[in-house]
Amino acid sequence: MKKTVGIIGANGYTGSELIRLLAFHPHVTLSFLYSRSNSGTSISDPYPDLTTVCEMVLTDKPEEVDILFLCLPHKESQNWLTQNPVKDETLVIDLGNDFRLEGNFENRNFIYGLPGINKKQLMGAKSIANPGCFATAIQLALLPLAEKGMLNEVFTTGITGSTGAGQSLQATTHFTWRNDNVSAYKTLTHQHVDEILKQLVSFNNKEVILNFVPWRGDFARGIFTSSTMKTDLELEEIEQLYQDFYAEEPFVTISRKAVDLKQVVNTNRCVVQIEKSGNVAVIHSAIDNLLKGASGQAIQNMNLAMSWEENAGLNLKPVAF
Amino acid sequence: MKKTVGIIGANGYTGSELIRLLAFHPHVTLSFLYSRSNSGTSISDPYPDLTTVCEMVLTDKPEEVDILFLCLPHKESQNWLTQNPVKDETLVIDLGNDFRLEGNFENRNFIYGLPGINKKQLMGAKSIANPGCFATAIQLALLPLAEKGMLNEVFTTGITGSTGAGQSLQATTHFTWRNDNVSAYKTLTHQHVDEILKQLVSFNNKEVILNFVPWRGDFARGIFTSSTMKTDLELEEIEQLYQDFYAEEPFVTISRKAVDLKQVVNTNRCVVQIEKSGNVAVIHSAIDNLLKGASGQAIQNMNLAMSWEENAGLNLKPVAF
Amino acid sequence: MKKTVGIIGANGYTGSELIRLLAFHPHVTLSFLYSRSNSGTSISDPYPDLTTVCEMVLTDKPEEVDILFLCLPHKESQNWLTQNPVKDETLVIDLGNDFRLEGNFENRNFIYGLPGINKKQLMGAKSIANPGCFATAIQLALLPLAEKGMLNEVFTTGITGSTGAGQSLQATTHFTWRNDNVSAYKTLTHQHVDEILKQLVSFNNKEVILNFVPWRGDFARGIFTSSTMKTDLELEEIEQLYQDFYAEEPFVTISRKAVDLKQVVNTNRCVVQIEKSGNVAVIHSAIDNLLKGASGQAIQNMNLAMSWEENAGLNLKPVAF
Amino acid sequence: MKKTVGIIGANGYTGSELIRLLAFHPHVTLSFLYSRSNSGTSISDPYPDLTTVCEMVLTDKPEEVDILFLCLPHKESQNWLTQNPVKDETLVIDLGNDFRLEGNFENRNFIYGLPGINKKQLMGAKSIANPGCFATAIQLALLPLAEKGMLNEVFTTGITGSTGAGQSLQATTHFTWRNDNVSAYKTLTHQHVDEILKQLVSFNNKEVILNFVPWRGDFARGIFTSSTMKTDLELEEIEQLYQDFYAEEPFVTISRKAVDLKQVVNTNRCVVQIEKSGNVAVIHSAIDNLLKGASGQAIQNMNLAMSWEENAGLNLKPVAF
Repeated sequence: MKKTVGIIGANGYTGSELIRLLAFHPHVTLSFLYSRSNSGTSISDPYPDLTTVCEMVLTDKPEEVDILFLCLPHKESQNWLTQNPVKDETLVIDLGNDFRLEGNFENRNFIYGLPGINKKQLMGAKSIANPGCFATAIQLALLPLAEKGMLNEVFTTGITGSTGAGQSLQATTHFTWRNDNVSAYKTLTHQHVDEILKQLVSFNNKEVILNFVPWRGDFARGIFTSSTMKTDLELEEIEQLYQDFYAEEPFVTISRKAVDLKQVVNTNRCVVQIEKSGNVAVIHSAIDNLLKGASGQAIQNMNLAMSWEENAGLNLKPVAF
Repeated sequence: MKKTVGIIGANGYTGSELIRLLAFHPHVTLSFLYSRSNSGTSISDPYPDLTTVCEMVLTDKPEEVDILFLCLPHKESQNWLTQNPVKDETLVIDLGNDFRLEGNFENRNFIYGLPGINKKQLMGAKSIANPGCFATAIQLALLPLAEKGMLNEVFTTGITGSTGAGQSLQATTHFTWRNDNVSAYKTLTHQHVDEILKQLVSFNNKEVILNFVPWRGDFARGIFTSSTMKTDLELEEIEQLYQDFYAEEPFVTISRKAVDLKQVVNTNRCVVQIEKSGNVAVIHSAIDNLLKGASGQAIQNMNLAMSWEENAGLNLKPVAF
Repeated sequence: MKKTVGIIGANGYTGSELIRLLAFHPHVTLSFLYSRSNSGTSISDPYPDLTTVCEMVLTDKPEEVDILFLCLPHKESQNWLTQNPVKDETLVIDLGNDFRLEGNFENRNFIYGLPGINKKQLMGAKSIANPGCFATAIQLALLPLAEKGMLNEVFTTGITGSTGAGQSLQATTHFTWRNDNVSAYKTLTHQHVDEILKQLVSFNNKEVILNFVPWRGDFARGIFTSSTMKTDLELEEIEQLYQDFYAEEPFVTISRKAVDLKQVVNTNRCVVQIEKSGNVAVIHSAIDNLLKGASGQAIQNMNLAMSWEENAGLNLKPVAF
Repeated sequence: MKKTVGIIGANGYTGSELIRLLAFHPHVTLSFLYSRSNSGTSISDPYPDLTTVCEMVLTDKPEEVDILFLCLPHKESQNWLTQNPVKDETLVIDLGNDFRLEGNFENRNFIYGLPGINKKQLMGAKSIANPGCFATAIQLALLPLAEKGMLNEVFTTGITGSTGAGQSLQATTHFTWRNDNVSAYKTLTHQHVDEILKQLVSFNNKEVILNFVPWRGDFARGIFTSSTMKTDLELEEIEQLYQDFYAEEPFVTISRKAVDLKQVVNTNRCVVQIEKSGNVAVIHSAIDNLLKGASGQAIQNMNLAMSWEENAGLNLKPVAF
């Protein structure tokens, strides 16, 4: 029998992306879409691509379900859970950043939902903190070196699509401004740095310094990052180390050829490429920020927690062009 | 047991898009990918998004299969079939324009593969001529009126993405030129006009004049068209007529709200909207030129011909953003 | 001695574009930039490209000047002039639509500022109603035929950049929505149709029907239009007629080669191309909506009114790429 | 009297951009446009934006001129000068990279044409090696620190528009591929690194390490770079140092506000912004790769060499949107 699913904050980008994935997922059925601000309207109003796919009406009355996704603005998940008690046996997956640094909350213990590092703990888990988008792209680029204790100082530049900024209208998401434009923001102070370092350090067993410069790109979907560091390892050693680390990961590919962003857009995949010159290595990674960087990874985590095939509902046609 | 599939001309855009769809189709298995010019290389070389999805090596030796897709340059399908005889029981679907105007070829009779008009003939068919991209978008916008004999003269403007021009490098597909640009081409002389009129006239039972101005757009995927005409019908009458005509079509939606191109990108859907002012009606339609306008519709036709669910392998996640 | 200039509504797109042009104009000096909502801030705050070019502080206290540009939201120019009396000898150029259909207002008589038709009246004029952007592109495409009384019914599709929608944040100017997208709006009901018909009919001396379908494009600057109509004239006759009509126009070019939008972006030019098939003609035109479609044409009108070289300050480097 | 100018390699991007600038330059007149491959055709054929601006016919017979620009593929300038002797008194400005690292060639001594460091030597010079585009953007970001001997190791990411790849058709400039895409290329091995280090080290008086990761962006014009480094200087000290260093530079601006690429597109300006967190500084710079990064800087160098106003012909209207 299919499991029931509810989405809190269903009318944002990550919420609507979950609907696109869940609508064709073999093991679940959508029970309700919750939105305080837009209850009473059909989800296909703000997202007409969902016409005929899912035209459920947004509600402000959550129901009991087997699986609950929280797609709320950062820092609102805790409030919501406090005000809307959820049964212990319900799987809760939070796409905000409320439980990424500190997973203990009331009687729940949120597992950090990066399957590349926590797959065993995620299997059967009841509480999952889904990673951030830049955090996913950068960790997947650096984890194999961290696991060997080989990370010291890293210089990373990453560029993100406009969907990363959400659906609210902002000066920096105005088409006239953003089209053909590039800009830096939150230089060295992006909120994902702490999330990244927490994981990297736990593997690396010594300090890691991450100098991260995020850029805004003039495209809607995707994140591309390049991380530069000193290392004495040979290119082939690094590649082997990455191949080994991700041997069981269906959605992470180590590429020996040039990586570009559109290789992964509209998929749940992460592609990583390593280059080396002298004693300097550069590691590129690319993901779709709304999928592997948010809703796709959330589905992957659900699959693991429910003991379903890890790629159920995630065999997505790449947009490619 | 799964049916075997071969693709002739697998390394073009429509061929690679077929692979993306067939890789996850429940009833088929890919037997071979044929390319004369690139045999010996993996399909994931030119299309790295196919890494881990399909890494078959292109061959110049076709095999016997249950289903054969021809993705050759226009006018080369006839030659290929003459030089490479295919068993009578093999389903042949041609994505070129060789059999759209004249379906009889040797001992085969190609059915025009627009399910909205030929669904019965397509069920069990062995030879299918898959429609052109603009031809699909414009016919779906006009057929319900033609069926009532209500088409006279139509003025259509359509804009297409760069994938419509194929993968060859051309001045008009150079990024520097096409980015932020719009231009007209083949004004009043586009090769799809004959294909469109053949179908429209057969329904309309009297002459139809189609003045078609195609434009090149600065995006990769999609076709958007607006067709203007005189009519005495009320808006509600036209909408009802369209709702009725497409009642059985899972991939055609009549929208009462504004249509935009991205509602259909990376899906097999066509969305149609009708507007009226005075005695003038304007009918907008939007499709993904590589899916409903090519490879997606080819899969839909295969499903019909093989008596499978019409949407098998076509529940695609819209790119949406 | 240089003439003094003031801009009312200086912090919108057309206002800021005027500043870019006036900053290097040989015969004028900027006296004040008026903005009620943003007085006290430097114009280079919202428009950092103006840093070092013009860093004047916006004021809410207009001064007496020789030349006054009104860049207010439509319908606010009349109010402003009533509340802020301007000396008779001041040249007033309104970029809104307040005086386009009816030029008489208080003791002023606004001349319609399309130099292609009103050049003599514009020379020495004290009140000028600057045309709309689509209105400019479409009139320049049709006027030579109207002058010969040869216009009957015209079917026009036009696509506009996002700057046409102004700087306010709207769902249809959100980058995530507009990127790679096309959509129709104000189908058959665009506010410029009346403005266009008023001029065309006055030339044509009989009714003209204009069926206009405007589209939103995924670029920031520019308008491209295609107008389809029946005509018995030969292509060469039409081209000659256009060459003759625009013989004295420095900013209108009749092209025998394919026209594309970027030929005119960041210039004050309009390029027109005529194509013909059977008894149907299609006339394409392209302009930069903020220049020939707004602020550039306003400078051209100022030059004419002040008896300066028509192209003073308008020898602009095309962006080209 | 106006000076005569010839352009060798006039039909490439940098050559055509020179024409756009020279057409309205107050002190020069174009004598000839040289192209071996396209002689006999009008320059307005490949560049229709030049219609009415410059319709000179390309020739394969160079003439004697006062000023000669070489816009040849890298490494062809030396050959050309050997085969086509130029009078000593002719000013030769090479936009290729033939004389950037080694300026002595036959009886000429090419001055490196970055006005920010060589202004005095450029005044009256007869031979100028115009800098590379990335080289300009990165040097302008780092020179003030180098002059104080404060550069050690720098980690730079830069993103460039498609015009940087020239007009030849390549897989990585195909619109379908590049639209919405980002990719890395020549990681740590870009040919401009040597050019940059030669200058930086001559100022810094000790080794500088530059780890440079270039990216391809999905826009046509512009370069944006971010350079990260360790430093004990306070932000205000660095800003002051930059203000002082560029006090006499009309085209370099130190911004205390966020920099974005479109602030400089279609101008000869470079905007630099400095940010600091802990002991790490990040320096952003933005230029138009075809102007400050190529043809605009070449005009600036011409102005200096000819003792004209430094900004003659360079008061360009920013595209801004």
